[in-house]
Amino acid sequence: MKYMFSKFLVTATLMMAAAFVCSMTFLAPAAQAADQLPSWNDGNTKQSILAFVQNVTTPGGKSFVPVSERIATFDNDGTLWSEQPMYFQLLFALDRVKALAPQHPEWKTTEPFASLLKGDMKNALAGGEKSILEIVMATHADMTTDEFDKIVKDWMATAKHPKTGKPLTEMVYQPMLELLAYLRANGFKTFIVSGGGIEFMRPWTEKVYGIPPEQVIGSSIKTKFETRYGKPALVRMPEINFIDDKAGKPVGINQHIGRRPIAAFGNSDGDRQMLEWTQAGGGARLMMLVHHDDAKREFVYGAQSHIGTFSNALMGEAKQNSWTVISMKKDWKVIFPKK
Amino acid sequence: MKYMFSKFLVTATLMMAAAFVCSMTFLAPAAQAADQLPSWNDGNTKQSILAFVQNVTTPGGKSFVPVSERIATFDNDGTLWSEQPMYFQLLFALDRVKALAPQHPEWKTTEPFASLLKGDMKNALAGGEKSILEIVMATHADMTTDEFDKIVKDWMATAKHPKTGKPLTEMVYQPMLELLAYLRANGFKTFIVSGGGIEFMRPWTEKVYGIPPEQVIGSSIKTKFETRYGKPALVRMPEINFIDDKAGKPVGINQHIGRRPIAAFGNSDGDRQMLEWTQAGGGARLMMLVHHDDAKREFVYGAQSHIGTFSNALMGEAKQNSWTVISMKKDWKVIFPKK
Repeated sequence: MKYMFSKFLVTATLMMAAAFVCSMTFLAPAAQAADQLPSWNDGNTKQSILAFVQNVTTPGGKSFVPVSERIATFDNDGTLWSEQPMYFQLLFALDRVKALAPQHPEWKTTEPFASLLKGDMKNALAGGEKSILEIVMATHADMTTDEFDKIVKDWMATAKHPKTGKPLTEMVYQPMLELLAYLRANGFKTFIVSGGGIEFMRPWTEKVYGIPPEQVIGSSIKTKFETRYGKPALVRMPEINFIDDKAGKPVGINQHIGRRPIAAFGNSDGDRQMLEWTQAGGGARLMMLVHHDDAKREFVYGAQSHIGTFSNALMGEAKQNSWTVISMKKDWKVIFPKK
Repeated sequence: MKYMFSKFLVTATLMMAAAFVCSMTFLAPAAQAADQLPSWNDGNTKQSILAFVQNVTTPGGKSFVPVSERIATFDNDGTLWSEQPMYFQLLFALDRVKALAPQHPEWKTTEPFASLLKGDMKNALAGGEKSILEIVMATHADMTTDEFDKIVKDWMATAKHPKTGKPLTEMVYQPMLELLAYLRANGFKTFIVSGGGIEFMRPWTEKVYGIPPEQVIGSSIKTKFETRYGKPALVRMPEINFIDDKAGKPVGINQHIGRRPIAAFGNSDGDRQMLEWTQAGGGARLMMLVHHDDAKREFVYGAQSHIGTFSNALMGEAKQNSWTVISMKKDWKVIFPKK
């Protein structure tokens, strides 16, 4: 009897343990009531995010949105990671020019390559968009998609920021990482919608942002299906396929997602149409713009900048349309993840 | 003491109940051992599906594939639903021509519209691809994406098959619906990769196949972001953007998904490159072709057909590459869902 009783106690204890584990699972949603945006200072900006998510996820509420329609789109450069002193993809292209130079002796006397190889960035980019396009085509095309994927992965594993010396994957904004996770925890699908190259982002966005390749939208060059090395392959062609910027962003969103976002996040004039398109849908909507106003912890730029331009006209439209402008200085406790 | 003891018993009973509920949750995967492909006859075809899924989902196995990489792509016309006596999208276009005819008096004397309006299909389509393109452009463009979405939804709600009289949404293959659900239950993301129009499919694929708009890839016309009716809108332009067929399928897959599928399903020469591209990746792969060989329950067509062509060359390649050919006659217990 004593034996029976203690066996019963052991069983009961095991069941208690099982029930505890079980209740932990059941309680998980309640535990989420803890602050999931700890790097955001209290204030109107943080409140507008929390109120929006509460509105669209409250069953029976007038602004309720089914999970399948909870689409949020994020610009990348200047919205999820830094873009100064130049787009990081341009750093990649410059490194590729150096790596490929021995195979291209003609670059020594051809612009923009000649200036680039001498380290004269200003002169190299003097031709503006045309120069950038030539550099991109010379470094991003004429190889298979698998080869390009490996080159990007290898480069990202060692690339350092020219000013901070940090790995580029650490030049991401901690508050935005929290926002991405918070939205996903509330049933959202998060997408990147960037002017940057789609195949330059896909090799690392899942690891860095938790965003899988199929949720990355960007600019692209054409690819062609053919046989390479005796196997079917997709070869990258030196020809523009799509520019996912400005009025191209709603087009890219429609092409890839086929639904209108209910939340959109950007930081520049290139994101204006994405936010307009998002807002033009019915029901609750959240439109936000990151403003780079923190010289001490990041960079200050705006209307005068060549990249990430946040024009006075955009600021005016934000006010008129009740878009939320995120002040990096006031709204964010920290900028970059602590390592 | 007696009271204490019975209280203990009650508590223990409650915990047992909790543990039971809890274990039910834990046991759910085991319950899935029931046949999830009940409309598939036993045999090599069904076994090849089951063995593949077992291989890629067994942790620690040499063919294990992480959930994020479990991508399966499906052709639509002739693979997920019927395509005879003509592509259903063409039925839609013909109905649109009739609806729009009053606004286009010139169609009475312009081909292919004149023949179409007289009901002379053969003559209307005598111009081949060029005629079809003219019909598509006249019926699919010059409206906003929202307007087109509504037109498709309204049409699909009432459209009937010209031979069976069934709603088109019931002309889907029950065994393929089971296969889609079975793959998703095993962590796969299922995509449509069709030569059909991307915006023609998206309004109904989630309801009919459980495939959301962002997992539909297809042919498209260009869209333009502009102001319509005083609001930002995407307007459909009468200009081809992308043809998602043959060598275009791997291109479309790469553009939208950014990963190579590990399983691909088709039924015609238009799917050859998708299957080649899928197979060319490393590790376990499943390539299958639906063969329309059931005159009694569906249609028989193949090398001689103008649509859904399953050429002798494709049959040869399937044999050589160990692709599985699904015989609708032998492998499927039922063809269409029972309503």
